[in-house]
Amino acid sequence: MANDQPLTKEAILEAAEQVLRRYGPEKTSVVDVAKALQVSHGTLYRHFPSKAALREAVTERWLLRIAGPLQEKANQSGGSAAQRLRSWLQALIDSKRKSVIEDPEMFGMYSAVTLEAVDMITEHVQLLIQQMTHIIEAGVRTREFRSGQPEAMAKAIFMATSRFHHPAYAYEWSSATIDQEFDLVWDLILTGIAGGK
Amino acid sequence: MANDQPLTKEAILEAAEQVLRRYGPEKTSVVDVAKALQVSHGTLYRHFPSKAALREAVTERWLLRIAGPLQEKANQSGGSAAQRLRSWLQALIDSKRKSVIEDPEMFGMYSAVTLEAVDMITEHVQLLIQQMTHIIEAGVRTREFRSGQPEAMAKAIFMATSRFHHPAYAYEWSSATIDQEFDLVWDLILTGIAGGK
Repeated sequence: MANDQPLTKEAILEAAEQVLRRYGPEKTSVVDVAKALQVSHGTLYRHFPSKAALREAVTERWLLRIAGPLQEKANQSGGSAAQRLRSWLQALIDSKRKSVIEDPEMFGMYSAVTLEAVDMITEHVQLLIQQMTHIIEAGVRTREFRSGQPEAMAKAIFMATSRFHHPAYAYEWSSATIDQEFDLVWDLILTGIAGGK
Repeated sequence: MANDQPLTKEAILEAAEQVLRRYGPEKTSVVDVAKALQVSHGTLYRHFPSKAALREAVTERWLLRIAGPLQEKANQSGGSAAQRLRSWLQALIDSKRKSVIEDPEMFGMYSAVTLEAVDMITEHVQLLIQQMTHIIEAGVRTREFRSGQPEAMAKAIFMATSRFHHPAYAYEWSSATIDQEFDLVWDLILTGIAGGK
């Protein structure tokens, strides 16, 4: 990119993501990204005052790419609410597992940011819980699920499935029994949301 | 300890634990433990061929001290099975949280060993799942819980509560909402094991 073009936030984040992938999150500096964009590091610091700010912004954009297809899934209406909920959870789990293998630098950065940028992660989790709440509300309306507080149920399900999607657990996802373990937890959850209706 | 006394495994592990607490798991060597016991490091290497073996053995002993009081809780028979199960889970969670604060060196070593010594950790988890299975079986017998496979339910509950007792999550245990989050997950679990009976 020539340095006489307007520098959009999107262009910076795209360049930053590429540089982060090439050098790894630990070694990438704001100056490296400025070089890739052929702008002065002063220009870049006006947008992102620190390496931490840049990392957070790149991670936030990456998380939106995870949440987007899940939002589409949450908006679908075919099949039972139980099928949709399971399919949504499986999509969340699959997207995280795929990232560990196919995009390890970005996944590593997201894992690190999870420990630091609490507000941004809380917002991402809140978005995912809203998506699940939407599915659960539909299941309550059709009496497929017991009445109760759909948002509280969604939170409980998100936390009860942490083992399968939280980055702190990524080291267990290659276990031969991980899918079988998810089946057990899913059976418990399904009885928990359908059971006492 | 004078070096003409017999060197029991217990005495070595006790000394090793004290040395590990003093120097931290990273800095402690087998030689440090030999010095504390006033024996040659050759003598100690006959018992523990590597630093990793020593760390595993100390962690294993530490985990048995966690599992012991839980076994007593699992053997109790007063109150409902639901109360006993919740009280058992709370005791597991409390013992882990207490360790983070009061025994950070041992907890840190246990966290590290969790990623490495898979067999030993699997055995510990298996022991805890057996204890929960015992409580759930009693609840199934009295029809407080739905019929099903108590061991599978115990596994599911152990995994669904990972966030609250697995060391990879320790950084979240100081959150102001952690107890409230456990309440939500517990409600889901309780309906899951009682619901469809």
